[in-house]
Amino acid sequence: MRKIPKVKLPAGFLANGVSCGLKKSGKPDLALIYSCLPAAASAKFTTNSIIAAPLVVCKEHLAAAESFRAVLVNSGNANCFTGKAGIRDARDTADRLARELGVPSKSILVNSTGIIGKRLDKEKIKKAIPALVSGLSAPGIARAEKAIMTTDTFTKHAGLSLKAGGKRVNICGIAKGAGMIAPDMATMLCFILTDAVISRKTLDKILGEAVEKSFNRITVDGCMSTNDTVLALANGAAGNKPISGGRDLEVFSRGLDIVCLELAKMVVMDAEGATKFIRIDVCRAGSVDEAKKVALAIANSMLFKTAVFGENPNFGRVAAAVGASGFGIKEGQLKIKLGKLKGRQVKVTVDLSQGKAECTVYTSDLAPGYIKINAAYN
Amino acid sequence: MRKIPKVKLPAGFLANGVSCGLKKSGKPDLALIYSCLPAAASAKFTTNSIIAAPLVVCKEHLAAAESFRAVLVNSGNANCFTGKAGIRDARDTADRLARELGVPSKSILVNSTGIIGKRLDKEKIKKAIPALVSGLSAPGIARAEKAIMTTDTFTKHAGLSLKAGGKRVNICGIAKGAGMIAPDMATMLCFILTDAVISRKTLDKILGEAVEKSFNRITVDGCMSTNDTVLALANGAAGNKPISGGRDLEVFSRGLDIVCLELAKMVVMDAEGATKFIRIDVCRAGSVDEAKKVALAIANSMLFKTAVFGENPNFGRVAAAVGASGFGIKEGQLKIKLGKLKGRQVKVTVDLSQGKAECTVYTSDLAPGYIKINAAYN
Repeated sequence: MRKIPKVKLPAGFLANGVSCGLKKSGKPDLALIYSCLPAAASAKFTTNSIIAAPLVVCKEHLAAAESFRAVLVNSGNANCFTGKAGIRDARDTADRLARELGVPSKSILVNSTGIIGKRLDKEKIKKAIPALVSGLSAPGIARAEKAIMTTDTFTKHAGLSLKAGGKRVNICGIAKGAGMIAPDMATMLCFILTDAVISRKTLDKILGEAVEKSFNRITVDGCMSTNDTVLALANGAAGNKPISGGRDLEVFSRGLDIVCLELAKMVVMDAEGATKFIRIDVCRAGSVDEAKKVALAIANSMLFKTAVFGENPNFGRVAAAVGASGFGIKEGQLKIKLGKLKGRQVKVTVDLSQGKAECTVYTSDLAPGYIKINAAYN
Repeated sequence: MRKIPKVKLPAGFLANGVSCGLKKSGKPDLALIYSCLPAAASAKFTTNSIIAAPLVVCKEHLAAAESFRAVLVNSGNANCFTGKAGIRDARDTADRLARELGVPSKSILVNSTGIIGKRLDKEKIKKAIPALVSGLSAPGIARAEKAIMTTDTFTKHAGLSLKAGGKRVNICGIAKGAGMIAPDMATMLCFILTDAVISRKTLDKILGEAVEKSFNRITVDGCMSTNDTVLALANGAAGNKPISGGRDLEVFSRGLDIVCLELAKMVVMDAEGATKFIRIDVCRAGSVDEAKKVALAIANSMLFKTAVFGENPNFGRVAAAVGASGFGIKEGQLKIKLGKLKGRQVKVTVDLSQGKAECTVYTSDLAPGYIKINAAYN
C-alpha cells in the first residue's frame, strides 16, 4: 500500500468542477464525478431528522437503481429546509444531468453543501451542466475537489492502491468539511471512488465499519449537519476477482479504513479557525461505546477547547467533561495525561480504569477564527 | 410581592466577605453566611460524577445534621479533582470555622469555585476566619456576594417578601456563575436565605421544583461543572405558622421560583464574553422534556450562538439543531421565528406541531470574549 500524494482517480472515473454562480465570490461551486461504467454504490447519510433535499433524492435513487453513473454536487447552498420545492429542485438538476449524459435519472446521485434554509438557484446549475460534462477528465478531480469546498481552506483527498482479487485496485476519496462537524456523522461530504469489483452489499458493510472508525470519531463543534454524506462508488474497471471475503476483503477493507481516516483527520486539521489538531485517546474503558462517548464529551467541551487554544494545561476541564459524560466515572479511577500544548498537534490520554476497551477521537481547539467565520457565514 | 433592588438579608442572617489571598488579583475570595438561629437546609448539587471535595463534605454534613448555622465559600480554587487530601482540606476549614463560631462542625456547609485540579491553600482560609467572623453583619452580604465571584462581571442577587403563615416572610438569594454553565445544573453557586418557618422536607421539594424551572433551563457553554450547588437555608426568624401546604405553600413556592429564575437569568446575562441574552421558547412539543431538550439543543449549538453574535439571521442552524436533538422532528412540522437580532435581547420561537407542552430556556451568544477568558483562565 502506498499513499498517493496528489489525488489520482481510479480507472474508469472522470471528474470536473466549474463556477456556476452560486457562490458570490465566483469560486468553483459545481462538481461532477462520472463513472464510465455502471458502478455499485453505498452511501451513509446524516442521522439528523431534518435532512437536505438532495439526500431525499439520493435515497430514492439508491432504492430504485442497482448501478450508478454520476454524482453532481454543488457548494454555496445546502438545499435544506427548503420544503417540497427544494426536492423538486434537486430532482430537476439530476434529470438535466441525466439527459446530458444519456443515462437514467435514477443513476445520478446529487448533493449540496452551504447555507441552510435558502432556495437553491437550480437554473444556474442547469445552465452550467453542458460545460461541466464536456470538461470531464481524470485530472478534473482536482477541480471537483475545489468546487465542493465551503469554509475549507485546503482541498482534501487521500488514496492508495492495493492488491485484491488478483489485480491492482485503487481507492481514492475526496472530502469537504471544516465546520458543523459532529458525529454521527461528521458534517461533510465525502466521495470514495474505487475501480474494484465489489458488490453493493459488501461495500455497504465495510463502508459502514470504515465510517464508524473515522467520520464518526471526529468533532469540530458538536453541531450535526443536515447534509452529511459519505458515498462510495465501485465501478469494477480493475477487473479483479470480486472482493467478497477472506484475505482480499481484509486488505480492501483496511485500505478503505485508511482512506476514510485520512480524510476525517484532514477535516479536523482544516477545522474552522482552529490552531491545534487534538488527538484524544481514551483507554481502559468498559466498552468502545463508553470510550467513544467519553472522548467526544472531552472533544466537545468548549472549556477544554479554549484551554488548548490558550496552551493552558487546565486538566481539570478534562475531568469535568469526563464526569459529565454520564458514565459515573469517579475521581480515583481517572488518570489524565495532557501532552505538550505548544505546537500544532496535541495529544490527550485518559485512562478510565474500567476495562480493556479504547477509542481515539480527533478534534480541534476553539479559536476566535471560528466565531469570525460563523458570525458572518451566509 | 416586591423586588428588593439592593440585596437585603432576611431576619437572623449575617454575612461577610474578605480577601484571604487565594486570588492572585487580591480581590475578595472568602465568603461567610451565618444564621443566628439553627436553620433547615436543602441543597441541590451537580450531577457530574466528578464532584468537588466541599460537596462531599456538604453531603456528609447534610446527612448527619438536622440544622445548620453557616456556609463558608471560597473562590479562586474549586478544590476539585484533589483526591482525599482535598476532602481533608475542606473538612479542616469547616472545623476551624466551627470552633470560631462555637457550633458543631456538621452544622457548617462549605463550597468552593475556581480552577479544578489544584490543591486548595487551606491555611490562607483558616488564617482569615477570625476576621471573617468578627466582621459579620447584615450589610456584609454585599461583600459576600463579591467574594464568591470568579469570572462574573457583576454581583447577582434577588429577593422578595411575601405573606405566608400569618407573617411577612423574606426570601433572598445570591449567586455566582458566568461560564461552565449547563444543566443539570447550571454551573454556579447559589445561596437562598429565608427567615420562613418551613421544614426541610417541604423546602427540599419546592427547591427541587424551583431549580428545575430555573437553573436547569439555562446554558452558556454546555459544560457541566463539578461544583454546582444551590443551597437554601430557612432559619424561621419570621415566626410564621409553618409553611407546609395550601395557599401558604403556593405563595412561598412562587416566591422561591421567582428568586431562582431571576438569579438564573442574571447568570446568563453575565455569560462569559457574551453580547446577547437569548430566550428560546419551544412550544407545541409532545412533552416538557422534549421541549426542554430541543431548546437546549439550540441553546448549545455553537453555530447558532455565533450566528446570533454576528446578528446573522441564519435560521437554518436552528433547524439543524432541532433535527439533531433526537426527537425525529420533520421539516414540515417545524416553524421557526427569529426575533430581531439587533440589540441585547434576542427571542427565538420554535413550534414543533407535536402537542401542547412548552419550555423556555435562556442562553447567551458565543463571542470572542468567551475564548479570551477561558484560554487564559487559571
